Amino acid sequence: MTARLATVDDADVVARLLHDFNTEFDTPSPGADVLARRLRRLLGGDSTFAVLGGEPPIAVGLVTLRTNVWYEGRVALLDEMYVEPSRRGQGIGSEVIELVLATCRARAVDLVEINVDERDVDAQRFYERHGFHAADPDTGERAFYFELEL
Amino acid sequence: MTARLATVDDADVVARLLHDFNTEFDTPSPGADVLARRLRRLLGGDSTFAVLGGEPPIAVGLVTLRTNVWYEGRVALLDEMYVEPSRRGQGIGSEVIELVLATCRARAVDLVEINVDERDVDAQRFYERHGFHAADPDTGERAFYFELEL
Repeated sequence: MTARLATVDDADVVARLLHDFNTEFDTPSPGADVLARRLRRLLGGDSTFAVLGGEPPIAVGLVTLRTNVWYEGRVALLDEMYVEPSRRGQGIGSEVIELVLATCRARAVDLVEINVDERDVDAQRFYERHGFHAADPDTGERAFYFELEL
Repeated sequence: MTARLATVDDADVVARLLHDFNTEFDTPSPGADVLARRLRRLLGGDSTFAVLGGEPPIAVGLVTLRTNVWYEGRVALLDEMYVEPSRRGQGIGSEVIELVLATCRARAVDLVEINVDERDVDAQRFYERHGFHAADPDTGERAFYFELEL
């Protein structure tokens, strides 16, 4: 088990992994330096945490916590989850998500959320293996993620 | 234009509308009293706001703000949006969402997010009319919302 909670001192390595993630999927990134600056602030607060997997780290899960009117505790969003391509299929992602969930439980989180690409069936199966479901347990209905940049 | 930002003193009316929302859609609710207690705390902070529509209010939008590593400003999630059934189709929902977006802009929000039920095509069209899109602008791909209660 190599997964561990990131500290403020890990901001640079978390930033590099997130930047690599966006580069792999052709998504714009503000660059590792900007991400590291933001992460030094965010990881020092109590509403963001990151889990690193591998030594040296080659996987990351980034989580944001918030309040929600439907729950007494907090709600967590897994903002990003990334394993370097050459190291996939070795269980490192599972170690990361399990430590994410254990950390959420320790921080009084009642619900963990993730948005998963419609065509990324492998990722959907990965999260389902770890207990997530797309269908609302009450209505049996899935939901799409919508966004608007301001 | 009847939409207005809710204050802590509106916690009871916001709670009643949210409770009615869940009752209409057969989703469990902790009850209006519990919701009102939580809302008095949440609406008094700087990471939750609510917009009321109609006088007396018959519509509500509830928004949670959080930080995010990809943006310099904050990210907003429209947790709930509800218009009483007998008052739909009168533009009150549009007034609410427009004040939600204006409030987000005023609070340095860079991205607004919503999860919309897959089969609720009317709601999807409503949000698209107000500028939201399901497909990621970079990848052209939609995403499903996944959750896990702890």
